[in-house]
Order: sequence, then structure tokens, then C-alpha cells
Amino acid sequence: MKKIKKAALADLDKRFRTHFINSLSGFKSVNLVGTKSESTGLNLSIVSSVIHLGANPALMGFIMRPASVPRNTYENIIETGSYTFNHILPEFYKQAHQTSARYLANVSEFEAVGLTPEFSEGFYAPYVQESRLKIGMNFLEEVPIQLNGTILIIGEIAEIIYPEDCQLEDGFIDLIKAETVTCSGLDSYHTVEKLARLSYAKKDKPIEEI
Amino acid sequence: MKKIKKAALADLDKRFRTHFINSLSGFKSVNLVGTKSESTGLNLSIVSSVIHLGANPALMGFIMRPASVPRNTYENIIETGSYTFNHILPEFYKQAHQTSARYLANVSEFEAVGLTPEFSEGFYAPYVQESRLKIGMNFLEEVPIQLNGTILIIGEIAEIIYPEDCQLEDGFIDLIKAETVTCSGLDSYHTVEKLARLSYAKKDKPIEEI
Repeated sequence: MKKIKKAALADLDKRFRTHFINSLSGFKSVNLVGTKSESTGLNLSIVSSVIHLGANPALMGFIMRPASVPRNTYENIIETGSYTFNHILPEFYKQAHQTSARYLANVSEFEAVGLTPEFSEGFYAPYVQESRLKIGMNFLEEVPIQLNGTILIIGEIAEIIYPEDCQLEDGFIDLIKAETVTCSGLDSYHTVEKLARLSYAKKDKPIEEI
Repeated sequence: MKKIKKAALADLDKRFRTHFINSLSGFKSVNLVGTKSESTGLNLSIVSSVIHLGANPALMGFIMRPASVPRNTYENIIETGSYTFNHILPEFYKQAHQTSARYLANVSEFEAVGLTPEFSEGFYAPYVQESRLKIGMNFLEEVPIQLNGTILIIGEIAEIIYPEDCQLEDGFIDLIKAETVTCSGLDSYHTVEKLARLSYAKKDKPIEEI
């Protein structure tokens, strides 16, 4: 095992440090964020920081780095209040990754990478047709993180489009059956295998597989 | 495909909704958070919301739900400014899950579940000896999320302890080789397989596997 201290991190090559530090949070959720603007059209971008914030109300958040990426997604969310999360499948993870290229604001990443926009009645932002698990979000709040200028974007779930055969009796969605992929670091994509589901932990009772 | 709207979510059975909504963010990072208090001793808790916030300074965040869990981890972080993230391996994911039981503040979850505390010279909080990728954190800021009373805890990386043979030349840590697990929903644990690492996306260049 190697140990590296904060002072030594500062001395690392910038690109090396970026890959290194981005690996540390573990495997990450990875989603395509779909937005639309009246002035610049459709936008699609890949994010690896979506987190669950609460089940009731059903809130989800993700981190934006406005300084380092084109701001179309952010601007569209603020302008319209509407965006979608779309899980990524092995069939189109390369196209999903390609959305991180710096396209101009008036270019639709859907068209540029070859994914299909899909609309749901009564909801503004575009979904990715090729995705199997899609979440329509209503923007609620942006929380600025002063320490480094990033922003936590928080929204409430407006609707969920999902394969019903992947939902178990207790509500859990089997993401392996849904073929959702995960990522690590900046550029590594992965499929997932099951270990087990475990029973609710109680202090005087052994854990069981369920 | 099934579609469910926000209004219908509110009518779901509470437990069903919790499993359902917790599945939606995709596969998640899962870590054991180690803390220590002079008054109540060692504490270890499992969290599935650790996110990368920035590489320089090296910042990581995670979400705490103070209303729904015993507050020992939160109190210890605020009291001491020190905590650790420890990746979870297939060998001890059941013990890791068991730390979510409601032990009293003066009970060490290390002892209760059978994991070994380990200390690093010059760093206050305990690591998990059985873990292979461990991150020492200095607390910087708590960001309250007014919408539902959760808190984003932000810290800076103080040190990283990791298996050097899992780091590639460009800095990336191979988390499959490190045997890091991922989770989904409230209670499902998974191992991971590789799809590919992909080249940096540029708008006029096809993506390549690297």
C-alpha cells in the first residue's frame, strides 16, 4: 500500500492528479441530462454526479462545473426549469461519452452523437429514446459551493419512465436487468454483476440475503 | 415501458416508494465513513452518496440525513474535523451493511460488525484495515439543503492510502483490480466488469478505446 499526503498531491502533474482524484469516489452513477432551449434547441450532456437526496419529496441532485464546461445545460435548466436524467446502456455508452465534447450551443448533441430525442406529453425537456430508465425533473434550487465554484442543482422528480418488468415487488428497480452502466474516473465505463441484496440491518440480528 | 407521474408517487406505499426512488440515481459509490470522538469512541457508518467535487483542491462531498439516522458520524466530524472514506470489498460488504443498524453512540461499529480500526500517523480518524482504498478527509464546510433538511458535508483530501499496483500510468485507479464494490437502491451490492476506457471526447474526432 502506498500513502500520499495532501502536500504531495499538489506537486503531481495536473492531468495525472485529475485522473487520480476522480477515481477515488468509487463507481459512480452516470446519466445523460437532456434539456431544451427556445433559442438554441436541444442539448444533451453526460454527468457522473447524480445523487439521491430524498424519497418524499422525491429529490435528486447533481454537480455542475460551470467554469470548466460549456454552460448550455445549466442555462437551459435555469431558463426552462425542466431537464431529464437518462440511464446509459452498453449499446450507446460511446455516444453518451461523446456528448462531453465541446459542441457549440446551437448544435444538438443528440444529432451530433446519434441519439434520438423523445418527448413525453406534458413535459418540456427531451428524453433519450434509446435509454430504458428516464426521469423527468423539475428544477427547484441551485446551491452554490463557494469552495470551488461548483453548483449543486436540485430538482424534484416530475415523472419516471421505466421498464415495468425490472421493478420488484418491494419497489426496487433491478438496474442490472435494466442494463444501466456505471463509470469510474473520467472515462471508464462498466457493467455490473450482482453480489446480493441484504436485509434491513438491526443491531441484534444477523444480516441475511433477500 | 411504464410512466408514473409525481402525483401518483405520493400515493405509493412509503416503503415501496423509498426502494423505488432510491434506485433511480443508478449505481452508486459506497463507502464506510470512519470517525472518532474523545467522549464516545470509534464510529463507522456506510454511505452511498460520496461524490467528487474537484481535483485541485481535492474535494469530496457526501449527503447526511441527520433526521433519519443516529447523528454520531455527523457529530464526530463537526467535533474533530476528521473522517475517513474506505472502499468496500466483496469480502466484507455484509459487515459494511451491518454498520447501518442503530447502535448506541458509545458502541464501536468496528467491534460490533467485526472490522478492524487502523490508524495512520498524524491523522486522527480511524481507517478500516480490511479496505484497500482509503481516503483521509479534513472537514471544510457543511452546506444545508433547506428543501429536505439534509446536509452536504464537504472535505478536502488529507491523504490517500491505496494499492500502488492498481494505479495506471496516467493516474487512474483501476477500481475493478482494487475490488471496490458498488451498490444500488438501499440494500443491493454489486461487483463490476469492464466495458472500456474511452478517449477524451473532441467534436470532430471519433471516440476510441484506450
